[in-house]
Amino acid sequence: MNRYIFEISYNGKDFFGWQRQPRQVSVQQEIEDSLTKLNHNEKIVVVGCGRTDSGVHAKRYILHVDLPDLVYNSKLIFKLNRMLPNGIVVHEIKQVSPDFHARFDAKSRTYRYFIHQQKDAFNSNFSWYFPSSLNVDSMNEACKYLMGKQDFTSLSKLHTDVKTNICEITIAKWVKTSENELYFEITANRFLRNMVRATVGTLIEIGEGKINPKEMKTILEQKDRGAAKASVPAHALFLWDIEY
Amino acid sequence: MNRYIFEISYNGKDFFGWQRQPRQVSVQQEIEDSLTKLNHNEKIVVVGCGRTDSGVHAKRYILHVDLPDLVYNSKLIFKLNRMLPNGIVVHEIKQVSPDFHARFDAKSRTYRYFIHQQKDAFNSNFSWYFPSSLNVDSMNEACKYLMGKQDFTSLSKLHTDVKTNICEITIAKWVKTSENELYFEITANRFLRNMVRATVGTLIEIGEGKINPKEMKTILEQKDRGAAKASVPAHALFLWDIEY
Repeated sequence: MNRYIFEISYNGKDFFGWQRQPRQVSVQQEIEDSLTKLNHNEKIVVVGCGRTDSGVHAKRYILHVDLPDLVYNSKLIFKLNRMLPNGIVVHEIKQVSPDFHARFDAKSRTYRYFIHQQKDAFNSNFSWYFPSSLNVDSMNEACKYLMGKQDFTSLSKLHTDVKTNICEITIAKWVKTSENELYFEITANRFLRNMVRATVGTLIEIGEGKINPKEMKTILEQKDRGAAKASVPAHALFLWDIEY
Repeated sequence: MNRYIFEISYNGKDFFGWQRQPRQVSVQQEIEDSLTKLNHNEKIVVVGCGRTDSGVHAKRYILHVDLPDLVYNSKLIFKLNRMLPNGIVVHEIKQVSPDFHARFDAKSRTYRYFIHQQKDAFNSNFSWYFPSSLNVDSMNEACKYLMGKQDFTSLSKLHTDVKTNICEITIAKWVKTSENELYFEITANRFLRNMVRATVGTLIEIGEGKINPKEMKTILEQKDRGAAKASVPAHALFLWDIEY
């Protein structure tokens, strides 16, 4: 028995998030079911680097798992990619030390949220169509107030079971990639539920000129989800990277 | 009343092809319904540059339509893009001479068929996952036998109502865009039903080494659909361009 990490991608459209749950198809369940099958139906459990909400994609996701010699061999990636549905791809499997933990050892996570401002027949599964004009400078000015170690209660889903709402943001910025396309990138040591989508929704209203960039500071200080704006849709959000 | 051409794109996944038909959602129907609504419900009919099969995408599709002054104005693109579903985008509307015909005046059409050879969680709506290795040189050698004016009965759906199966191919080639991605491009004055997908299916078997590139000549000479190989799936095929 050795510990391995898997580097995977998944298309959030096809799954109710990462985490196994009753009566819903999750990424975790698909992977555990495939590994369990390869283990002659003796249950194998994997540990992911974090939850993602239903519909959210992962460009680079890391999990760890202890695999018996029966299951691990150099053909395992190939076999898993054949067994797993189209929306889940295993890119790499690497042996790690037995005390490595995919969630606890992660130093930070990076998300990207994609927006296109001109209607596009082929892009709407992975980007949000938002035709109103946006002032990117204002949105980036507001991003400054997100930086550092702060309480993000105002930008989190209510009634979750986490002990603290303090997160440390190290990157928060909007990047224009073409005339009509842009994305928001955010890196933090941890994220609260729904935090990126609530943050983007609030920044968008700043970009539209509905609220002043400086109000981002006030919104955070209020520690009240009602102070921020509505969340944006999940299908344009990617867990982009995990740093260890 | 003036004649206009529309340059549009559509995502084939959402429609049963271009052509209006009973009890199915087509691109033509969506556009005609929107224009008719703008014309106070007096029926407007559009003429497309050709049919596309169910599931096939169009990167650049041209239609012509005669529009009363009531309907045409500089806001028409904007209005139509709001009315039409996500999968149809109008890029340009241009006035043309009253005798211009989107289908009869087209000199040639270009299709592209996309293949990826490494599993990809995000690409499977627009490209066909084909993991077996392909000899691109063999496939390109076989393409030479497709060139010029020939009878393409062997690569057409049976029992269609066209008068002749003669087409003139001016471009037929495979292009590798990365280690694991390639596409087939074909330009002809006209295409028969299912012709591109049957051609790709046959070329793929040549690329796998199952048949010799030279057999493409024999297959065409037989004028028998049974001589060629199975068609490939529609979701990776794009009508890429129309030349007038």
